[in-house]
Amino acid sequence: MADVLVLNGPNLGRLGVREPDVYGSLSFADLVERCESWASEAGLSAQVRQTDNEAEMIAWIHEAVDAGSDVVLNPAAFTHFSYAIRDAAAMITKGGHHLVEVHISNPYAREEFRHNSVVGGIATGTIAGFGFDSYRLAISAIAALRK
Amino acid sequence: MADVLVLNGPNLGRLGVREPDVYGSLSFADLVERCESWASEAGLSAQVRQTDNEAEMIAWIHEAVDAGSDVVLNPAAFTHFSYAIRDAAAMITKGGHHLVEVHISNPYAREEFRHNSVVGGIATGTIAGFGFDSYRLAISAIAALRK
Amino acid sequence: MADVLVLNGPNLGRLGVREPDVYGSLSFADLVERCESWASEAGLSAQVRQTDNEAEMIAWIHEAVDAGSDVVLNPAAFTHFSYAIRDAAAMITKGGHHLVEVHISNPYAREEFRHNSVVGGIATGTIAGFGFDSYRLAISAIAALRK
Amino acid sequence: MADVLVLNGPNLGRLGVREPDVYGSLSFADLVERCESWASEAGLSAQVRQTDNEAEMIAWIHEAVDAGSDVVLNPAAFTHFSYAIRDAAAMITKGGHHLVEVHISNPYAREEFRHNSVVGGIATGTIAGFGFDSYRLAISAIAALRK
Amino acid sequence: MADVLVLNGPNLGRLGVREPDVYGSLSFADLVERCESWASEAGLSAQVRQTDNEAEMIAWIHEAVDAGSDVVLNPAAFTHFSYAIRDAAAMITKGGHHLVEVHISNPYAREEFRHNSVVGGIATGTIAGFGFDSYRLAISAIAALRK
Amino acid sequence: MADVLVLNGPNLGRLGVREPDVYGSLSFADLVERCESWASEAGLSAQVRQTDNEAEMIAWIHEAVDAGSDVVLNPAAFTHFSYAIRDAAAMITKGGHHLVEVHISNPYAREEFRHNSVVGGIATGTIAGFGFDSYRLAISAIAALRK
Amino acid sequence: MADVLVLNGPNLGRLGVREPDVYGSLSFADLVERCESWASEAGLSAQVRQTDNEAEMIAWIHEAVDAGSDVVLNPAAFTHFSYAIRDAAAMITKGGHHLVEVHISNPYAREEFRHNSVVGGIATGTIAGFGFDSYRLAISAIAALRK
Amino acid sequence: MADVLVLNGPNLGRLGVREPDVYGSLSFADLVERCESWASEAGLSAQVRQTDNEAEMIAWIHEAVDAGSDVVLNPAAFTHFSYAIRDAAAMITKGGHHLVEVHISNPYAREEFRHNSVVGGIATGTIAGFGFDSYRLAISAIAALRK
Amino acid sequence: MADVLVLNGPNLGRLGVREPDVYGSLSFADLVERCESWASEAGLSAQVRQTDNEAEMIAWIHEAVDAGSDVVLNPAAFTHFSYAIRDAAAMITKGGHHLVEVHISNPYAREEFRHNSVVGGIATGTIAGFGFDSYRLAISAIAALRK
Amino acid sequence: MADVLVLNGPNLGRLGVREPDVYGSLSFADLVERCESWASEAGLSAQVRQTDNEAEMIAWIHEAVDAGSDVVLNPAAFTHFSYAIRDAAAMITKGGHHLVEVHISNPYAREEFRHNSVVGGIATGTIAGFGFDSYRLAISAIAALRK
Amino acid sequence: MADVLVLNGPNLGRLGVREPDVYGSLSFADLVERCESWASEAGLSAQVRQTDNEAEMIAWIHEAVDAGSDVVLNPAAFTHFSYAIRDAAAMITKGGHHLVEVHISNPYAREEFRHNSVVGGIATGTIAGFGFDSYRLAISAIAALRK
Amino acid sequence: MADVLVLNGPNLGRLGVREPDVYGSLSFADLVERCESWASEAGLSAQVRQTDNEAEMIAWIHEAVDAGSDVVLNPAAFTHFSYAIRDAAAMITKGGHHLVEVHISNPYAREEFRHNSVVGGIATGTIAGFGFDSYRLAISAIAALRK
Repeated sequence: MADVLVLNGPNLGRLGVREPDVYGSLSFADLVERCESWASEAGLSAQVRQTDNEAEMIAWIHEAVDAGSDVVLNPAAFTHFSYAIRDAAAMITKGGHHLVEVHISNPYAREEFRHNSVVGGIATGTIAGFGFDSYRLAISAIAALRK
Repeated sequence: MADVLVLNGPNLGRLGVREPDVYGSLSFADLVERCESWASEAGLSAQVRQTDNEAEMIAWIHEAVDAGSDVVLNPAAFTHFSYAIRDAAAMITKGGHHLVEVHISNPYAREEFRHNSVVGGIATGTIAGFGFDSYRLAISAIAALRK
Repeated sequence: MADVLVLNGPNLGRLGVREPDVYGSLSFADLVERCESWASEAGLSAQVRQTDNEAEMIAWIHEAVDAGSDVVLNPAAFTHFSYAIRDAAAMITKGGHHLVEVHISNPYAREEFRHNSVVGGIATGTIAGFGFDSYRLAISAIAALRK
Repeated sequence: MADVLVLNGPNLGRLGVREPDVYGSLSFADLVERCESWASEAGLSAQVRQTDNEAEMIAWIHEAVDAGSDVVLNPAAFTHFSYAIRDAAAMITKGGHHLVEVHISNPYAREEFRHNSVVGGIATGTIAGFGFDSYRLAISAIAALRK
Repeated sequence: MADVLVLNGPNLGRLGVREPDVYGSLSFADLVERCESWASEAGLSAQVRQTDNEAEMIAWIHEAVDAGSDVVLNPAAFTHFSYAIRDAAAMITKGGHHLVEVHISNPYAREEFRHNSVVGGIATGTIAGFGFDSYRLAISAIAALRK
Repeated sequence: MADVLVLNGPNLGRLGVREPDVYGSLSFADLVERCESWASEAGLSAQVRQTDNEAEMIAWIHEAVDAGSDVVLNPAAFTHFSYAIRDAAAMITKGGHHLVEVHISNPYAREEFRHNSVVGGIATGTIAGFGFDSYRLAISAIAALRK
Repeated sequence: MADVLVLNGPNLGRLGVREPDVYGSLSFADLVERCESWASEAGLSAQVRQTDNEAEMIAWIHEAVDAGSDVVLNPAAFTHFSYAIRDAAAMITKGGHHLVEVHISNPYAREEFRHNSVVGGIATGTIAGFGFDSYRLAISAIAALRK
Repeated sequence: MADVLVLNGPNLGRLGVREPDVYGSLSFADLVERCESWASEAGLSAQVRQTDNEAEMIAWIHEAVDAGSDVVLNPAAFTHFSYAIRDAAAMITKGGHHLVEVHISNPYAREEFRHNSVVGGIATGTIAGFGFDSYRLAISAIAALRK
Repeated sequence: MADVLVLNGPNLGRLGVREPDVYGSLSFADLVERCESWASEAGLSAQVRQTDNEAEMIAWIHEAVDAGSDVVLNPAAFTHFSYAIRDAAAMITKGGHHLVEVHISNPYAREEFRHNSVVGGIATGTIAGFGFDSYRLAISAIAALRK
Repeated sequence: MADVLVLNGPNLGRLGVREPDVYGSLSFADLVERCESWASEAGLSAQVRQTDNEAEMIAWIHEAVDAGSDVVLNPAAFTHFSYAIRDAAAMITKGGHHLVEVHISNPYAREEFRHNSVVGGIATGTIAGFGFDSYRLAISAIAALRK
Repeated sequence: MADVLVLNGPNLGRLGVREPDVYGSLSFADLVERCESWASEAGLSAQVRQTDNEAEMIAWIHEAVDAGSDVVLNPAAFTHFSYAIRDAAAMITKGGHHLVEVHISNPYAREEFRHNSVVGGIATGTIAGFGFDSYRLAISAIAALRK
Repeated sequence: MADVLVLNGPNLGRLGVREPDVYGSLSFADLVERCESWASEAGLSAQVRQTDNEAEMIAWIHEAVDAGSDVVLNPAAFTHFSYAIRDAAAMITKGGHHLVEVHISNPYAREEFRHNSVVGGIATGTIAGFGFDSYRLAISAIAALRK
């Protein structure tokens, strides 16, 4: 099992195709490659996954709980309504591990309904608005926290 | 790939069995048959699907994005909370194609929680309250928009 | 008396002049002509009217009640506050006839105050967002309902 | 098909591991065993299932509708947002069968967002706050209702 | 002093007379008899009381605090506004004893103002919607908790 | 038992002493005398009572239910919070008898918290703002309803 | 000019035709006749009018202000939004004359939006829920106030 | 057609009579004379009108749109609810002409409901609180804007 | 009659027993003794009472009104809902006497529902958060006000 | 001391640099020069100041109170939250002098949070939306008020 | 450093000049003198300060934290919005010292926006409504707490 | 002028002393040292400042605008209400430079009022919850953005 699971929610598999003015023109494959390389530079192993399926996301978080991995979580639209993911994610931080919520764009600068996160309250911290670089910073934060 | 995907959300596979006073006594198979025939009369091909699974619904909308199909979407109970489906559906209309939200019954005449749609803001238009005929009108609207 | 009264609320007499990016460049006279022709194709007679006067709109709805006509209603800005028109319009559907609420643009994609309709709860159904074609679909819906 | 389906929502498969101060130290396997034995004492057969997947939960409720089974439902975090499960569950009680909503902990004594249930309005009744014993009481309630 | 005090709030003395479609046709005397018999089957002694008087209800809760009895409480309309009863009832659970809130009907399926309980937050648990059987289940819950 | 019970809530025993600019300078004894005489002119017997005690008010309404009397009710400050009195009073009108809510002053012209009545929804009708004459009108209304 | 103007708002000309279960089966002509006769019995002259036009209603209230007449006002649907009528009506009571708001049905027992009156705050008093008899009581109230 | 239409809403014809402590003791005729003279001093022609009728107000705004006139608008009580006037008035400013909202008194210093303007969002600017002098300032503002 | 009535609401008879971490370990008898002694030091006579009964509390406030006594009032949970006590208490301050609202704990530092007082608006002043010493300060405040 | 103090709040010293599409391309020095010249044309002396400091703004308002000067106040972002400035500014108008709130842009046409002013309620009047010309109009208004 | 810092917020330097009907006719110098004398009688040293500057207030609270002084704080208008002062003040009570919030007038009897305190939640207690005597009571409370 | 200004709002000068369980035990001097060293590692110069004064914070942001520096901003309690700082900060990002909002703790895991940021909408991005490490990540984000 990897040190860090980088988990991505619905529609993020469409990166590069969907609203490039908001999310940039790089693809999900590019994101995977970069996260792996950033983790490696930080002396960590990472595994990057994406799903549109709430239950699959929950299962992956359970996996991380069992393996004692840290998690970088971009919940995408689940951010605004999925208390089921919140309940799962709370197990990470209550168990003494780290969960960093990331967003590619800045939710506060978009529609009103994106200003609220039902996940934020149980995260270690939040990083938002830096494009793919949000993931690099999250991995760097976890590396610092593990020391 | 069909010209129009007619996508139906949770519990609509129970048509004819569930609350016939609200949804009528015809079955989902009847709906499929009628939509295909209405599309054919309008010079279009249609494919009709139903799922209780949010992730499968998102995958089908992605399919439509890739194929450049238009979409008739009855999100059923997802209407009121699934921002994940909203984000997927926005790709249809931002890409210059058409997405028509339909409802069999009139949500404004039912419980308070059915008065709000998180999907409506990114749809081309909405048709509600005409029983199965809402689908015929939606297909007819798309045929007109494609001219 | 016509089979269908197509009633239009305040400022719709300015079609083609007012906000053409929202309402299109065709005039109200064009709308009248098209509605009459669409009705005729559906085997119905139609009469199209417009008023900026709430009382006159109510009087026309009373006419429809007395004559047993169906109604296509674009309440325009009255949509959001006129309970007086709601009370009148309720007589149509309680009397067993049909009232279809139409909008040229998609209210959910405009200002917040346009997301609510005080008329929707007593309508047979709603069609919104297809430009003038919303009227054609409404007439088509009524034709189907009368069979 | 069993007389009673005991259906459990997301993260409940983690019982005994997740927040033992809230949910107790017994596992989901313990819950299954106890429910079967409580049902048997009440002269009923029971089947206990758990899923993190909203669509699978809906499918199981459809199964119960078709078989005429009663349902004990712990919707877990779905309680607070899934109108899709509400619509499915309403078929149980509208069809003259029984659906008892249960919670292991007392939602009123926890976070604000847990005080509301979108499912409660269509349940036969609610039992909350007694640990695993909430299930025993629900099975006992159903046995009494079937007489 | 009895093991369990079963305390009933305003208008419950009218059982069998008031809204039998909601509360059933059995009288308060029937309820007393049944509760005593259910308690006895569970190896407990019970005393059943009713009052329309908020101060008398508070005094009875004080009695239970002093005697170390458990309480089954149907606060009736006091549920929705009496913080005085909440403050008294909190002494039961803070003192390590049990207080079960019961309702004959399902408040979530009735008027909006019945959806909120100012008492629920300090109860051990809640049982609602099973007619008189809600009391049997409450007594059974207490018997289990005392073991 | 009288044809009409005229029931008055907290602080109304202080009439003539408390805020004479709002409630007038006549005493509660004056009110009793006038109500009796107005009832007699209308061919009815009346009994006028006052209490500061919610439970006593509920008991009197139960009396009226049992005797089949009509009720004129000035709930005073109970108007704004006592769902217990609402539940009792609903028995009057559900039983086919009449309950008229009266107020000496006009609550809408006073503080915000006096604009809402939790009792009004189950009353036959409401009369407010005419000083003692509100009672005469209420008795007159009941006389008309009994014909 | 009459002693009392009895002014009726939108849709009340439809009495006897519109929702007879709510408003009764008598016509507006019946109402006129009865009001005149009730006024005459009270030693007053009355004039009864109806309009669907907000501006006309305002003009009539101005008339009453100039003539020093008292007013019985059934604002119908204007009750809930017309601050313009409120402003006009306030002149009556600020000038030392009387304005009684009446409703045929009990607004508190109907839809939510009918629970609020923007006119009530400046009325002398309100009478609601007694059918046509609400008018008789209002005329009687005014006769008492003029003494 | 005049350079500037000065349009006044409901009850402003009562100036000098209605609430002189708020609106001053001068009449509407005085206002007309002053506005004409202020306009003339600013090298403009003005026409001053008043109506209690929403539809007439809309028609006058349409006239101004057609003639390319600027508008000084005192919507009076329409300020707080008439989206119909808002929609009409938006045509003035979207067409590149000027619309100044004026108020004689200061709405913020009066009742809560006067604090919001549904018209303000589409006006060029707002002037409030200077008595009749608000009109002189508005005319002066328009003269400056036309240069 | 004493110069000052010190009136205490529901559950305060349980002082020393109920939540000693919030209310301290001294009993109600201790409070009585201290208040009498503090009053005596300030040259005043005091009488200290406690009731769980809203009607009895109102009667005691009426007594104070009749005797012209000042009042120290700890309304306990009545603080948050009893408009009946507010109406009674208003007679004290409108009659030119003094009413000081006291709380042992600091309501702003406890649950949300304790942040609002329906009594505060008609009190002379409020003192909260000093344990029993809140009463000493209140008596001291009254002594100063009487000079 | 000048007849009129023209006081400007935070960030207005950046005029010409900050968002020229909203605030125009002229500098604060230009504003000073124009205000002085407009005042002089109106026969008044003016002094123009700017601060980012709430306390300094309050001090300047105190100065104006002591000197009996009138004030033109552009509170900039303080408009939306500073009750401290409101309290200070109220002294101007309560003392019989004039305070005109000005805004360069039209707050109602910008973000939601700019629609509310906590200062407006105590100002003599408000002028907004005319660019720098708002200041000329304000000075002109004060000149008229001083006559 | 003094035992007690008595800190006063914006506009309190205007005591005796600003709204004497609310705050009394004594000056801030009078307040200083009295606080010093009341402290001395209680065996304490006091220092009384006033500022309109939020940052200066925060600095003074920091001073108190460093010196271990207790604080009497009248935050004036800062009460209602300054979370910055709240954060500073929390350091006093978290450090085991005392902070008493005082108000000269009774905020509950004034404008709505004065009913909420963002500071109250972290204070030891609150005293309001007794004029300058509120300060004497606060000093007395602190003297008692220090014993 | 430094490449990056690291600006800190009210009470952050108290680091190490104030709520060490929330903010850690390191001092502000420690923070300065670390930020300088992190910046240097990233090839940037940094200057770290702290103020409790809103006006000084605004002045520093103006400085950054003039110098074309990027900004790391921890607005502390200003986060939740200072539109004045928002207006200043918007100049950074509108001018094409970078502004990163940082928080030491996770605001979503604290009081409700900390869940909203009035600054977030105009920031490049946000980083929260990592202790001092939030600053390192922010500097790293800026270094990446400058490439």
